Amino acid sequence: MAQALTDFSRLCVHTITTKPWPLEKAAKEFSAAGVSGITVWRDTLAGKNIAQARRMLQDLNLEVVSLCRGGFFPAREAAKKQAAIDDNLKAIDEAAALGAPHVVLVCGAVPGQPLTESRKQIQEGIAACLDHAAAAGVKLAIEPLHPMYADDRSAVNTLAQANDMAEALNSPWVGIAVDVYHLWWDPDLENQIKRCGQNGNLTAFHICDWNTPTTDLLNDRGLMGEGCINLKEIRGWVEATGFTGYNEVEIFSHKFWAQDQHQFLNKIKEAYLKHS
Amino acid sequence: MAQALTDFSRLCVHTITTKPWPLEKAAKEFSAAGVSGITVWRDTLAGKNIAQARRMLQDLNLEVVSLCRGGFFPAREAAKKQAAIDDNLKAIDEAAALGAPHVVLVCGAVPGQPLTESRKQIQEGIAACLDHAAAAGVKLAIEPLHPMYADDRSAVNTLAQANDMAEALNSPWVGIAVDVYHLWWDPDLENQIKRCGQNGNLTAFHICDWNTPTTDLLNDRGLMGEGCINLKEIRGWVEATGFTGYNEVEIFSHKFWAQDQHQFLNKIKEAYLKHS
Repeated sequence: MAQALTDFSRLCVHTITTKPWPLEKAAKEFSAAGVSGITVWRDTLAGKNIAQARRMLQDLNLEVVSLCRGGFFPAREAAKKQAAIDDNLKAIDEAAALGAPHVVLVCGAVPGQPLTESRKQIQEGIAACLDHAAAAGVKLAIEPLHPMYADDRSAVNTLAQANDMAEALNSPWVGIAVDVYHLWWDPDLENQIKRCGQNGNLTAFHICDWNTPTTDLLNDRGLMGEGCINLKEIRGWVEATGFTGYNEVEIFSHKFWAQDQHQFLNKIKEAYLKHS
Repeated sequence: MAQALTDFSRLCVHTITTKPWPLEKAAKEFSAAGVSGITVWRDTLAGKNIAQARRMLQDLNLEVVSLCRGGFFPAREAAKKQAAIDDNLKAIDEAAALGAPHVVLVCGAVPGQPLTESRKQIQEGIAACLDHAAAAGVKLAIEPLHPMYADDRSAVNTLAQANDMAEALNSPWVGIAVDVYHLWWDPDLENQIKRCGQNGNLTAFHICDWNTPTTDLLNDRGLMGEGCINLKEIRGWVEATGFTGYNEVEIFSHKFWAQDQHQFLNKIKEAYLKHS
């Protein structure tokens, strides 16, 4: 079991968590609340000067933890596969411009295409981006997604698969994002986290909770402590590998997005200390 | 890849699939449609004389494939655990009275209780029912459920786990129900089906499809061919073990339940031949 968190020095919040707030507003509020890190979703950068955004975040003393998200490599047509690679190269450029050390990859899947084929295409897609990632100094973090997203979001659905893929790619510019929402149920999770850390691939750690009942496959994530995830135990496994990075709060929730976002941010801070 | 299905001699339909129909109505319609097998859900037996129901099904030439469902063993309190065991003993008696060779187990989980503890309690619960199952000549079929049900429906979420548990219990009265909806995403599925068959544990095979998007975690299953599951390939793996049992159509769907059930049954027959 992990030691209790007593301050916000390792608290990072994803911009999607407070989706109603545009980037500037979120950054000011996070900073004023004592949040230390921010993971920027690409939609919040649309039409913006990224260098200016970077300065704004620096002035607010927010560390840019990562850029969300690249990926979606599999496709039936070659042109679409190339378009995905191009978009990932662009994401790498954006991350470099923003000062984000890694891009999170939601790897993708094509309904009806064999998962084995999608997995192959994902690995090939990542490989095709590695020279660019190395030149930019930006890591690509494979995020295994819950099996309920295997149809159209990710054919990588366990940490074992992500470990296999990262080890096969064998590059300092490939890592893994461990998200408790996707992985908590896996009987092999402790071992796979250990393996991920030992091989130097544990790049990011995302937290939230699993609601019972869950009313929406995408946008009904819980705040830490609301659900059934053994969060402190999993954080303990992550930290036992030597991981000292951020605990990133990533919550997609129609319920919370409809609420006052200041109050929600306060709830996040409280839940972070009490339940994470 | 499995050989095409050309008749309905191995088609079984679950009563829940045509939920609006009570047991007698479902049985008559299945029989008239040439369906060969029926899996009876316990709710349709409430208040009924089971011996009479058995004769009714025999007269209609429907083979009783299984009784759904027992399970839900884990609990925090000893009294609740005992109540679950008592209910499973009752399900075994009902199956014997109905002539069902096995009871499908939705094993259960308690939100917030460690999955390892729930798994232990499931195995203990099944073990406590085995003498009764043997005396009644009724098998208990562990059904691994999709990881999205790990919070409150089943702590057994992969076929590997079900295989481990069935092998540990090591009884001719324990088997496994393989349902494509729960297991299709698993990269280890082919191997685990092979293992399940080799160890004599492959007791039942349930089919349907996975919709994209899926709008409800429970009641938005697709008809075969509507979704992304590699159904013919999985049936091929199942049959390669020597399995010659029924292909059981088990579809929970608000959409289909709201439709004319005669038309739906025709759609099932068409999809069975074309896509299963």
